[in-house]
Amino acid sequence: MKAARLFAYDKPLKLVDVETPRLKNPADVLVRVTGAGVCHTDLHIVEGVWKEKVEITLPYTLGHENAGLVEEVGPAVSAVKKGEKVLLHPVITCGTCRPCRIGEDMHCENLVFPGISADGGFAQYIRTSERSLIKLNNLDPADVAPLADAGLTAIRAVKKAASRTTSASNVVVVGVGGLGHLALQLLRCMTNANIIAADVSESKLRLAEKMGAHRVVDALIIVGYGGTAHLKAIDVIFSEFSVLGSLVGNWDELRELVELTRQGKVRVLTKKGKLDEVNDMLDQLKKGTLEGRGVVIP
Amino acid sequence: MKAARLFAYDKPLKLVDVETPRLKNPADVLVRVTGAGVCHTDLHIVEGVWKEKVEITLPYTLGHENAGLVEEVGPAVSAVKKGEKVLLHPVITCGTCRPCRIGEDMHCENLVFPGISADGGFAQYIRTSERSLIKLNNLDPADVAPLADAGLTAIRAVKKAASRTTSASNVVVVGVGGLGHLALQLLRCMTNANIIAADVSESKLRLAEKMGAHRVVDALIIVGYGGTAHLKAIDVIFSEFSVLGSLVGNWDELRELVELTRQGKVRVLTKKGKLDEVNDMLDQLKKGTLEGRGVVIP
Amino acid sequence: MKAARLFAYDKPLKLVDVETPRLKNPADVLVRVTGAGVCHTDLHIVEGVWKEKVEITLPYTLGHENAGLVEEVGPAVSAVKKGEKVLLHPVITCGTCRPCRIGEDMHCENLVFPGISADGGFAQYIRTSERSLIKLNNLDPADVAPLADAGLTAIRAVKKAASRTTSASNVVVVGVGGLGHLALQLLRCMTNANIIAADVSESKLRLAEKMGAHRVVDALIIVGYGGTAHLKAIDVIFSEFSVLGSLVGNWDELRELVELTRQGKVRVLTKKGKLDEVNDMLDQLKKGTLEGRGVVIP
Amino acid sequence: MKAARLFAYDKPLKLVDVETPRLKNPADVLVRVTGAGVCHTDLHIVEGVWKEKVEITLPYTLGHENAGLVEEVGPAVSAVKKGEKVLLHPVITCGTCRPCRIGEDMHCENLVFPGISADGGFAQYIRTSERSLIKLNNLDPADVAPLADAGLTAIRAVKKAASRTTSASNVVVVGVGGLGHLALQLLRCMTNANIIAADVSESKLRLAEKMGAHRVVDALIIVGYGGTAHLKAIDVIFSEFSVLGSLVGNWDELRELVELTRQGKVRVLTKKGKLDEVNDMLDQLKKGTLEGRGVVIP
Repeated sequence: MKAARLFAYDKPLKLVDVETPRLKNPADVLVRVTGAGVCHTDLHIVEGVWKEKVEITLPYTLGHENAGLVEEVGPAVSAVKKGEKVLLHPVITCGTCRPCRIGEDMHCENLVFPGISADGGFAQYIRTSERSLIKLNNLDPADVAPLADAGLTAIRAVKKAASRTTSASNVVVVGVGGLGHLALQLLRCMTNANIIAADVSESKLRLAEKMGAHRVVDALIIVGYGGTAHLKAIDVIFSEFSVLGSLVGNWDELRELVELTRQGKVRVLTKKGKLDEVNDMLDQLKKGTLEGRGVVIP
Repeated sequence: MKAARLFAYDKPLKLVDVETPRLKNPADVLVRVTGAGVCHTDLHIVEGVWKEKVEITLPYTLGHENAGLVEEVGPAVSAVKKGEKVLLHPVITCGTCRPCRIGEDMHCENLVFPGISADGGFAQYIRTSERSLIKLNNLDPADVAPLADAGLTAIRAVKKAASRTTSASNVVVVGVGGLGHLALQLLRCMTNANIIAADVSESKLRLAEKMGAHRVVDALIIVGYGGTAHLKAIDVIFSEFSVLGSLVGNWDELRELVELTRQGKVRVLTKKGKLDEVNDMLDQLKKGTLEGRGVVIP
Repeated sequence: MKAARLFAYDKPLKLVDVETPRLKNPADVLVRVTGAGVCHTDLHIVEGVWKEKVEITLPYTLGHENAGLVEEVGPAVSAVKKGEKVLLHPVITCGTCRPCRIGEDMHCENLVFPGISADGGFAQYIRTSERSLIKLNNLDPADVAPLADAGLTAIRAVKKAASRTTSASNVVVVGVGGLGHLALQLLRCMTNANIIAADVSESKLRLAEKMGAHRVVDALIIVGYGGTAHLKAIDVIFSEFSVLGSLVGNWDELRELVELTRQGKVRVLTKKGKLDEVNDMLDQLKKGTLEGRGVVIP
Repeated sequence: MKAARLFAYDKPLKLVDVETPRLKNPADVLVRVTGAGVCHTDLHIVEGVWKEKVEITLPYTLGHENAGLVEEVGPAVSAVKKGEKVLLHPVITCGTCRPCRIGEDMHCENLVFPGISADGGFAQYIRTSERSLIKLNNLDPADVAPLADAGLTAIRAVKKAASRTTSASNVVVVGVGGLGHLALQLLRCMTNANIIAADVSESKLRLAEKMGAHRVVDALIIVGYGGTAHLKAIDVIFSEFSVLGSLVGNWDELRELVELTRQGKVRVLTKKGKLDEVNDMLDQLKKGTLEGRGVVIP
């Protein structure tokens, strides 16, 4: 099959022929990818930021925001069957460790992260596991693939915010990109807070207004997860504020997000392309000229 | 193997020879039972109370509070291995439905309840699944088997109470039997409330004091889950009180309970016997003369 | 001043001249009533349902859903001043008992309930306390008086429901009257649940649809707080369901509700009349022909 | 009356004669101080650390951890009467702003902090308000004065920790001084976590063991609230950890703490002295040679 793979850091992905993955475990599922979102994390991987965080040797296939059609299921699979449209929760989990048992999938002690620590979805087929799948029914995989990572990260963060806000609260969304435009819509349907969107791009501020921001701010900022926060202890104590880490999201949060999308409360803005356009999309993402989320259709 | 089975309602269990169960699914585990608690629910099953609640045809093996040694594991099992001491969460769950995904095992959409809706642990061997097991390490299965149901039901209820109490609260434990004596100890280590124990038996009130009750009350009551509560709407509103159902407990609560037992904060009072003494124990339980929890060792 | 007072149970209120109330305590506030909602509880009071619940001797002035203009303030009052538009939290609280200290106003140990246990707002003036007031700023007191009881009761119940629902939940609102039509709107802005409204009246079901119900059900039911709930213990346990009492609401919930109204997310449907129309309104309420909430303007 | 006052930064307090405070507002209460704890914050005030945080001109009386006997009450006071033993919540609050209404006293919009932003309790008398008092009944004010700040700060932080821990959690208490020895005991009665105490002093580690630490660590650290935390964003995200500010505590938490002390679950280790020994105590506190909490008895 065709796959877009990373052969060397700081180089474009190469579109090559590789063997189609096969089922290994009884609960494995093979999915034909019909939508794979292009994410800032893909840029960071290419730049080598993740080199020391995960054990993987080049080359391998990127793409961690995947959706498609069930192609083949292992003998222990009962939840999905061939031909069904599915969204892939970004990680493969064991189901028996304590984090899995309390529903905290991202903290699975035996976690595999396709597209980051294993072959991902910038390919015609991807191997995943029954536990990672959510049925899409009447939703189109290519339209909603970005829910799997950008959307999931947004809903988990918004849920944390929601439990801390009232109608008198102000919430600032910093950056109205793939994740930000979904966070805005989720803040609208999960809180009654006053929502402020900040971005450096005029067109993204217009998008923010369309997506429900109550106020937009033209800010000279660049966002990401590469920085360091400096907190003076006395300020943290005086204002009694909290810094909360939030790591992607769990299966049930993804299920909730798919349901909100089905209800029409969340709409994913996508720009679709073919698999061989993935390097182009990564470039546009870097330059900040991509509106909404890029999705390749292998 | 030997098993104590129910052949007819309102009759004693019969000790008979049956085929030893075999593994069916890849994640199945066969456990040699070395401790099986005797519970009021066993009495209710014999009396036919559960006849219409579960689909099962007689005869079958009772016993839903089980612990023992791993005898054999299926090909997909990685969490336990032969010879390890284990406690069995009372139900077998699928791991992929929504309740399983958020950690609410008791509400699994594909739940099997050995000893109630399938063959249980009043037998030399029982078949369960990897997902249902908790390792006991240095704890003796026969000593802690009652944690699996009496203890688990107690910890879930106490956790609900704990989040609603302060040091100024009063909590009443009605009945100091197999469940009640564990609830008392859990209230001691999970709350700072004032604990009152009520029972009809003088010796059980003495036990309650030993287990940490701050006050005991000699009450003319008989407890169980057969009754009906009548709530006047205006009273519920005025006092803004709540009635909370609590159904056994989930895997992580059982893990927590095993840890508290290991720390010495919870001690299970057991009266041990052989498998052929199970009818005797059921009789004593009915008469209220059994102190702590009866445990048969098949 | 004019006041509509109850002189005898099961008789209409009489419009009479009484002395205008005076300030008694340093934190007292006198309010000129310009909107007082007419509530089912007024009917129940007239019927004598509350006779044994509160200590009060006839005659006295009804009306517990009040709004108006500050007329005079005691020497210890700093939060409001003469001429400001205010909504009255339904109860007068001491501010120093434990319930007051943790924000649970309705459970104040020294609570006074004007219109129920003291003279209420079916009058030109009412005496209340600084602690009970919320400023209305640009909102008209007569338009929002029903927030003080119907709305407040609704928001507290909806908040309890909100923390227990996801986008896949079903919530049923039984009765689309003064309280129900506000509950519907609050469910829309505080949850993503599927909302079902039940009523016996066709026009109220149409109202429910306009207010955001996803589905309406023509039901042969009459609702109120006079009944008794019968709960089989085994059902409560099996489904692990809860019955939660909910008593009006606290000051901060009323502040939140006023803010949601200001944001346009909640709209109170009122039918206004003069003080001498109060008996008419009570009649219509009894017959179920009043749409939205009746409000008298003394 | 006698008072220990700060006349110049970096200088010892001076014991001088000042006028006894008088009641100003209807809810004011005058308390005869019979116990006032000596705290690290007093050192920081002397060092000028707080100079820019609060508006106050020298000289003024320090002491923010106060207890004593009610001497005189204003006309609006009903909760306490002359002669009663009371503990003073560290701040004076208005009771009508939103933070006060939801029980978050420390965030009162009109807060006064005696001993920091007004005259404190290193004096024979202190003026406070009815809202700040908790009755001590049979507890001795000098024995429990440190509950008012050290203890209150500890219980609020421990409550935050408690809701995040299970019996498998590890909690580290850094520093076993006035606050730390109370935090240790609270962790014992409010959690089942494994408690580790770290300090630079051998005798304080022995104290920690006596107070219930499961493990002690001899650490080369000096604790305080003067520092800055540096958090790498990627680490916060990966481990999904939180940094939670915690600011002293509210009235109801202080009430809870007094109750736990009454139950014997918390014991305050104090070293008592006269008012003119306050500079000595501050010196010992600085050197780290004071065990438990210094309390002056004016």
